[in-house]
Amino acid sequence: MKKMIVASTSTLHGQDTLEYLKEELSILFKNAKKILFIPYARPNGISHKHYTNAVGVALLSIGKPVDGIHDFDNPTEAIQKAEAIFVGGGNTFLLVKTLHDLNLLSVLREKIEEGTPYLGTSAGSNICGVTMQTSNDMPIVYPPSFETLGILPFNINPHYQDPDPNSTFMGETRETRIQEYLTQNDTTVIGLREGSWLDVEDENIILKGPYAARIFQKEKPPFELESGLLLNFN
Amino acid sequence: MKKMIVASTSTLHGQDTLEYLKEELSILFKNAKKILFIPYARPNGISHKHYTNAVGVALLSIGKPVDGIHDFDNPTEAIQKAEAIFVGGGNTFLLVKTLHDLNLLSVLREKIEEGTPYLGTSAGSNICGVTMQTSNDMPIVYPPSFETLGILPFNINPHYQDPDPNSTFMGETRETRIQEYLTQNDTTVIGLREGSWLDVEDENIILKGPYAARIFQKEKPPFELESGLLLNFN
Repeated sequence: MKKMIVASTSTLHGQDTLEYLKEELSILFKNAKKILFIPYARPNGISHKHYTNAVGVALLSIGKPVDGIHDFDNPTEAIQKAEAIFVGGGNTFLLVKTLHDLNLLSVLREKIEEGTPYLGTSAGSNICGVTMQTSNDMPIVYPPSFETLGILPFNINPHYQDPDPNSTFMGETRETRIQEYLTQNDTTVIGLREGSWLDVEDENIILKGPYAARIFQKEKPPFELESGLLLNFN
Repeated sequence: MKKMIVASTSTLHGQDTLEYLKEELSILFKNAKKILFIPYARPNGISHKHYTNAVGVALLSIGKPVDGIHDFDNPTEAIQKAEAIFVGGGNTFLLVKTLHDLNLLSVLREKIEEGTPYLGTSAGSNICGVTMQTSNDMPIVYPPSFETLGILPFNINPHYQDPDPNSTFMGETRETRIQEYLTQNDTTVIGLREGSWLDVEDENIILKGPYAARIFQKEKPPFELESGLLLNFN
């Protein structure tokens, strides 16, 4: 029953928000009269209201009005009644803390499992994995747990970036960070490049978009998975 | 009594470990017969032993032997008896979790406050601040708290990088991440570029090295602080 788009980023360089996903979203959301938007990740610290307004403008182009979850007295009920759900990017720590504090993870998981169409971008994709522990974000708040939805049987690293061979920067590359993760954890990590997304229908998870994904598994060398292929890892 | 070097990075591109700090370290550690090394941040997931060996080679060049804290039965006692302490970089979450789990933060704080010479690089500098919440690292483990030593009255962002004006990457810049931190917290953040360090003598904190630091404060525009100047923020 699951129907999800789990995208590395909401926006490609030089494009409008969600522009590159417009066709896919028209299909994903075709039976929904409106979309519940969850703005808790607050990119740049913008307010729930401003974030929801910006996303509302973007989704108008496929003719779907957006309600922000912050406008409901009862956010659990807002999720339960939603016809379609979009969780946007920003700071994953803030998103996960808010979802835990409001006790929304289990109801969100149930709704997605039941087949409510779901769009995640960046932090909103990260939370589809087992934990948020392959987030790129700064730990600006302390969530009560790093556990997330666990709807995908692996973890997502959104905005995956290849090492720059000309860099003189001495901080860790993304690959190093993910390898450090795998010294402490067993969960497979999908490095999802900007422009890539996972198309989820029930148990079928297919990589879409112009790029390969980089797959990291414990005690194995990382490898590239081409677009169009199934992700049958756990 | 405090005597500290709090450095953005252990190593500059194309140089040996700690090479650029050699003169400063000869002075900082001049009265210590040996140095206690705390390898808990485990860069690249390397073992405590291998990390300590690598640092041992680097500090041989200033004639100081190194003991790894993991070789002591009682790490608290190892810190209490140390003549000088070096906490190296790697993953800040792993470092902070291990220090909390072994209950070492308060004894480490006391020793530094008493005047035991301290060197921190990267994650080892991050923990000198109020919290680890301006770390760049991946949350590969879940620490029981983000609180750190609080010896400096602000937070450190090590390996600070300026935004690349030619970048097409849609993930957050470092500046955006720190601004997001300041929407949720009040603590001043020092963006410390690679090659910069803080020289701490008692309550005097001076920026050293060839670069300015970028200072971020709540509800103020960020600004540059030139090398050689005092950091009298809180």
